[in-house]
Amino acid sequence: MEKLHVIKIGGNVIDDPVLLKNFLEDLAAVPSYKILVHGGGKLATNLADTLGIEQTMIDGRRVTDAKTLDVTVMVYAGLINKSLVAGLQALNCNAIGLCGADGNLIKSTKRNHPGIDFGFVGDVSEDGVNADQFEKLIRSGQVPVISPVTHNGQGNLLNTNADSIAKVIALALKNKFEVELTYCFEKKGVLENITDENSFIPVLSKQQYHTMKTSGIISKGMIPKLDNAFGAIESGIKHLRICHAGSINNFTGYKEGTQLIA
Amino acid sequence: MEKLHVIKIGGNVIDDPVLLKNFLEDLAAVPSYKILVHGGGKLATNLADTLGIEQTMIDGRRVTDAKTLDVTVMVYAGLINKSLVAGLQALNCNAIGLCGADGNLIKSTKRNHPGIDFGFVGDVSEDGVNADQFEKLIRSGQVPVISPVTHNGQGNLLNTNADSIAKVIALALKNKFEVELTYCFEKKGVLENITDENSFIPVLSKQQYHTMKTSGIISKGMIPKLDNAFGAIESGIKHLRICHAGSINNFTGYKEGTQLIA
Repeated sequence: MEKLHVIKIGGNVIDDPVLLKNFLEDLAAVPSYKILVHGGGKLATNLADTLGIEQTMIDGRRVTDAKTLDVTVMVYAGLINKSLVAGLQALNCNAIGLCGADGNLIKSTKRNHPGIDFGFVGDVSEDGVNADQFEKLIRSGQVPVISPVTHNGQGNLLNTNADSIAKVIALALKNKFEVELTYCFEKKGVLENITDENSFIPVLSKQQYHTMKTSGIISKGMIPKLDNAFGAIESGIKHLRICHAGSINNFTGYKEGTQLIA
Repeated sequence: MEKLHVIKIGGNVIDDPVLLKNFLEDLAAVPSYKILVHGGGKLATNLADTLGIEQTMIDGRRVTDAKTLDVTVMVYAGLINKSLVAGLQALNCNAIGLCGADGNLIKSTKRNHPGIDFGFVGDVSEDGVNADQFEKLIRSGQVPVISPVTHNGQGNLLNTNADSIAKVIALALKNKFEVELTYCFEKKGVLENITDENSFIPVLSKQQYHTMKTSGIISKGMIPKLDNAFGAIESGIKHLRICHAGSINNFTGYKEGTQLIA
């Protein structure tokens, strides 16, 4: 099977112009098939603030009301997505910027929480991914750049977690390609010591993760990211790495970053 | 040759929820190949106002500074584009929302005016349209929904007139399909009497247009639209109609609207 890199970048990469520029250059140079999934960044929060749209947090999670959804779609599917595409095109990388509604690529369901109304938030699963459409795009030489916005198929756009999108795309394409899933952020990997950049753990098993979570070594912010990533491993993704956005030119050898294993 | 409808809707259609809903239903029902090009609407102006971005007009034309460009990309390529796509998808129309940077579909050049710096405004020509890429999208059963944002190939997005985009797409595809170009707006066609909705001119030749322009019958706002449209006719578009957005279910017969002829 041919290799496919599914690479996710988060807000901290998008908010750092130098890191982002280097990342895009490295991405453009990756010779195999690839899909980029991007998150948000400060821009959406800043725009919501400027527009006086009050942000409601419940249990540390943002509620997406109608106005916040509009901001999300404008910033994620509009400004960030198109800026990334224009940047990649300038590097001769044939990027095509899409959200989940485009070509019916990713259908989601509005989150149905028993006690909390999260608003226009969409949850995704492998079944909602239009794998044939992704395959067509990729095989025709295009590089999909996916924003964290999906749709429910009934005309509603939904704000969706970018880590989850990267995971379900990887899972949906794992029978068509040899998928490598990479989560890029601003650290060198999962750190053993949050204050030491170089303390990244080269290989992390689920067992070790549980031990480290229990003993409090793994920081709070990493837990949903790692839960999501180990979910991908359990569902059949064989190659999964969490690494610095500056490390993707090094797709073999794993000199840096954390490789997750079952 | 197979038929391809290139249909443009302007801001007045986008700003009218009832008209827009009917239009999308009619568009989804058009059986032949189709491309939708959309303009802006009040949303971008309102957002710029709310954000305190001062809009500079020179000779009745808006200057697109960096902040205005961001608003344009957010609203046009983001919110409007994705809302149209989600709406069409809900009608089982396989829409895919794109700007000119996506798949390198439409390359433009930054407007080079001898006396005025219009900022980040892109001018397009037939040569900048990636006709093969459009053909692939269309023949694979997708309906491109094109926002009025293009790129210069060097990483810059550029604000671009939607009428011009519709024209150059139609021209670039005229050797691959039997292209019908339709400009939809909120009037029944080119009106002989601006106060009488039913005074639309069924067929308008370039000669008649010049006579009417000279005698002041055709209103100021219609002149750039008609100049652009007659430019398309002169460059080889055989079927061009200006009509109400509520008339596209009637693509044959021309009971309403103005058909332009050489």
